[in-house]
Amino acid sequence: MAIRLDVSNFIARAAGTGPGGGIAAAEFEGAAARFGQAHAALRAQHAAGILGFLDLPANAALLRQVTDFADARGSRYRDVVVLGIGGSALGPIAMRTALRAPGWNALPDGSRDGWPRLHVLDNVDPRTIAALLDTLDLRQALFIVTSKSGGTAETMSQFLVVHEQLARVHGSRMTDHLAFVTDPEKGALRAIARREGIPAFDVPSNVGGRFSVLSPVGTLPAALVGIDVAQLLAGAGDMALRCAGGELRTNPAGVFAVLQWLADTRHGLKVQVLMPYRDALRDMAAWFVQLWAESLGKRRPDGTHVGPTPLPALGATDQHSQVQLFMEGPPDKTVVFLAAGRGEGDVTIPRAYGDIAELAYLGGHTLGELLDAERCATAGALARAGRPNATITLDAIDPWHVGALMMLFEIATIYAGDLYGVNPLDQPGVELGKQFTFAMLGRPGSDAARREWDRMPAPDPRWQL
Amino acid sequence: MAIRLDVSNFIARAAGTGPGGGIAAAEFEGAAARFGQAHAALRAQHAAGILGFLDLPANAALLRQVTDFADARGSRYRDVVVLGIGGSALGPIAMRTALRAPGWNALPDGSRDGWPRLHVLDNVDPRTIAALLDTLDLRQALFIVTSKSGGTAETMSQFLVVHEQLARVHGSRMTDHLAFVTDPEKGALRAIARREGIPAFDVPSNVGGRFSVLSPVGTLPAALVGIDVAQLLAGAGDMALRCAGGELRTNPAGVFAVLQWLADTRHGLKVQVLMPYRDALRDMAAWFVQLWAESLGKRRPDGTHVGPTPLPALGATDQHSQVQLFMEGPPDKTVVFLAAGRGEGDVTIPRAYGDIAELAYLGGHTLGELLDAERCATAGALARAGRPNATITLDAIDPWHVGALMMLFEIATIYAGDLYGVNPLDQPGVELGKQFTFAMLGRPGSDAARREWDRMPAPDPRWQL
Repeated sequence: MAIRLDVSNFIARAAGTGPGGGIAAAEFEGAAARFGQAHAALRAQHAAGILGFLDLPANAALLRQVTDFADARGSRYRDVVVLGIGGSALGPIAMRTALRAPGWNALPDGSRDGWPRLHVLDNVDPRTIAALLDTLDLRQALFIVTSKSGGTAETMSQFLVVHEQLARVHGSRMTDHLAFVTDPEKGALRAIARREGIPAFDVPSNVGGRFSVLSPVGTLPAALVGIDVAQLLAGAGDMALRCAGGELRTNPAGVFAVLQWLADTRHGLKVQVLMPYRDALRDMAAWFVQLWAESLGKRRPDGTHVGPTPLPALGATDQHSQVQLFMEGPPDKTVVFLAAGRGEGDVTIPRAYGDIAELAYLGGHTLGELLDAERCATAGALARAGRPNATITLDAIDPWHVGALMMLFEIATIYAGDLYGVNPLDQPGVELGKQFTFAMLGRPGSDAARREWDRMPAPDPRWQL
Repeated sequence: MAIRLDVSNFIARAAGTGPGGGIAAAEFEGAAARFGQAHAALRAQHAAGILGFLDLPANAALLRQVTDFADARGSRYRDVVVLGIGGSALGPIAMRTALRAPGWNALPDGSRDGWPRLHVLDNVDPRTIAALLDTLDLRQALFIVTSKSGGTAETMSQFLVVHEQLARVHGSRMTDHLAFVTDPEKGALRAIARREGIPAFDVPSNVGGRFSVLSPVGTLPAALVGIDVAQLLAGAGDMALRCAGGELRTNPAGVFAVLQWLADTRHGLKVQVLMPYRDALRDMAAWFVQLWAESLGKRRPDGTHVGPTPLPALGATDQHSQVQLFMEGPPDKTVVFLAAGRGEGDVTIPRAYGDIAELAYLGGHTLGELLDAERCATAGALARAGRPNATITLDAIDPWHVGALMMLFEIATIYAGDLYGVNPLDQPGVELGKQFTFAMLGRPGSDAARREWDRMPAPDPRWQL
C-alpha cells in the first residue's frame, strides 16, 4: 500500500529541455529553506487549532457517529441524495466514482450488494431536480443536506423543495428521511435540526468546506453506500504522517506544492493540468480543481492577483482533445498524471483481423496495458517537447489510497497558500456575486448591493447581436 | 427561435475597466478588416472543397440514410453503444445531455418513450467496459463503431472486445448489432464493412473528426434515441447563413473569434472559460474544449507556440469552485456564459421557515429564476472587477438551437485558425505520443519510434518518492 510520486520529467535534464523547460534541480533544492518556512507555518497554524482537516483521520468519535448511523439506518434506503454544492458535492461525487462500480446509479437493484444509489444534486437546475424527484420512491429515500455555513442559497432552495415533498408524504415522520451535515453550533440548518429533531452531523468549526471531504460531508454518504470509511481515514492519516517532516525531498505534498509554485511564479507555467488515466479517478480532478483554484486564486494584500489555473483532463480520452494544446500550444502548462495499479478485472484484447494492420498489433495485449502505455507515451512525448510533467501512482484504487491522495492535495494546498502569500482558507472573491444575487431576489439587508447593482452599466444594444 | 450574443461586458467601458480591462471598442472595430481577410479565407477554402462541415446541413442524402436506418431498426434496441473517442464521443455525449431527459440511461425502461439508452465508451478503461458489457443484453444492443480514420487504436481495441462477444452470442448474425461510421473509402473499418456486410455510414472525407458532430458521427446516435436530427441540421444551416457575410458586427462567429483572439494575443487573456448555466448544456463545454484546444493549440511555421486554453465550467455549481479564481486570480481569463430560456418545468421554491433569514427570502421565487439571477450576478461581478465576459443565449434548449450553437463554434474555430495563423484542421502534436504507444505495443513499422523511446532518459531515482 503506497502512493508514489515521480517528478523526473518535471526537473530539467539535459535531454529534456526545450520551451518551458523544467525546474532546474538547483532551483528546486534552493527552495528547500522556503519550504521549511511554509511547513513551520502549517505546524504553527495547526497548533493554533486552525487546520482542523489534519485532525479528521484521528477523530474516532466523528467516525463512529457516521458508521453507527449507516449501520442502523442504511439498509432502509434505496436512494441517498446529497443536497450540496462545491465542497459539499465534489467529495462525495469523487468517492462514488472512484470507489463504487462504474455506472453505480444505473445498475439494477440486485447488482449493488444491497447498497443504495447515491445521487448528488450539485446545482439548482429545475429540470434536473424535478427529474430526480420524479423517479424516487420517497418512502425509501434519505436526503442529506450538506452546508458548512448552514445557509448556502442553492442548498437551502433544494431543501425547501424537498422538504415540501417529504412533508406531503411523511408528515412529521419526515425526520426519518433527512440528515444534516453542518457546523456544530452556527447556522440555519443547526437551528432547524434542534427544533425538529433531525439527525445532524458535525463539520468541525475549524474545517472549511473544501477541506471537509474526510468529515461527515464525505464520510456519511460514503458509508451509506458501503465504502469503508475507516480505511479512507487510515490512508489519509498515513499521508499526514508522511508529510509531517519539514524536509522537502521526502515530503510528497511539499514536492508537489513547491514544483507547481516555482513553475507558475518563475517560469510562467500558470495552467496546471491534473490528468488521471483511470475512469475511476476522473472526478478526483474536479475535486482537485476546486481545492487548488478557490484556495490559491486570490488578491494578495499588496493588490497583486495570483494563483495557478487548474485544468482537469482524462487519459486516454483527452489525448484526442486537449493533448495537442499541451504539446504544441504555449509553454504555459504543467501536467500531473494520476496512475494506478491494474488490479483485477483487466480485459484482454482478442486476436482477430490479423490481416489488417490497424487491428493486428492490438490482439493479446490488455486494455489496462494499452491505457498505461498511452500514459507513459504521453508523459514521454511531453518531456521530449520540454513540457514538465509528473506522475502520482496509487498501488490500487481503494479507500486507503483515495484517502491518502486527498490528504496529499489538501496539505499541498496549505503549503502553496504560504508560498503564494495568500490565505488558502477564505474566498472573498465570490462575495460580490452573492450580494448581487441577494439583491435580485430581494433578500432583506441587501439594499447596498441593490444600489451597487443599479449603478452597473446596462447591456449596450450596440454590443448585442 | 434565435441565438443571441451579448458582448457588452467584453468591451471596455468607463465603469467596467480594471485589471485585464476589456477590449476597447476602437480596437474591436479596428479588427474588422483583419476579420474580412479571415472570412474571405474561409470562403475560399470552402469553395476549394476543404470545409465539408459547412455542407452538412444541406446534405439530405446523408440525413435520409441516418433517419431511414433509425426508423427501420431503432425500435429493436434497448441499448445503443457508441465506441469512439475525441470528436467521435464528445458530440454524441453533448447531444444526449442537452436533448434527452436528465439521467437518461438511469431512467426505468418505461420512461424513455420506447427509445433506447445511449452509452458512449470514450476510453479504454477495462473496468468501465467490462461493467457496461456485463449489464447489457446483447440481443437488444447496437454498437456504433465511430472512427473517421478507421484505425484509432482505442476504438479498434474496443471493437475487438465487443466483436468477440457478439460473435459468441450471434455468430454471423452479428451484423444486425453493428454499425460503422467512417471515411467513405479509406481505412480498416470501411474494409471490414465491405467484407462482412456491416452497415456503414459516411463521414465525408472533407469533414474532420472534431467538426463531424452534424455528420452521422452525431446524427446516427442522436436519431436512434429520438432526437429530431432534421431540426438539428436546420438550426445549424440557419447559423451558417447568419455567418455568411463578411461584416464583423453582424457575424456571431466572427465576433466570438475576434474578441477571444484579441483578448489572448493583445491582452494576455489566454484562458477562455465556457460556462453554461444549465445542466443540459454542461457537456457542450467539453465538446467546445476539444474543438478550440485541438484546432488552435499549435506550433506555427515560424516556430512560435500559440493557442488559447479553453476551460470548462458550470453555473451555478462552479461559483463554489472556480469563480473565486476567475474573480481575484490573475487577469488572464475571459468567460463566456451560455444561457437559455426557462421553458416549461420550472420549479417554485415553497415558502417555509419564514422566521429564518437564510431561507425566508427564497420562497416564492423559482429555481430557474435563482439560476438566472446567479448568472447575471456573476457576469456583473466579473465586469465590475474588470474581467471581460460575454453571454450567448439560446431561446430554448432544443435540436434547432443546439445545432445552431455548434455551427457557431465550428465557424468561429475556422476564423480563429486564420487569425492565429495556424491550420485548425490538423493535430500534428499528438503524433509522437501515438508513435511511442505503437512502439511499446510492438506494432510493426514502429522501429524508429522504439529507438527514439529508448533514447529517452530513464526515470531518475533521485526524483522519485
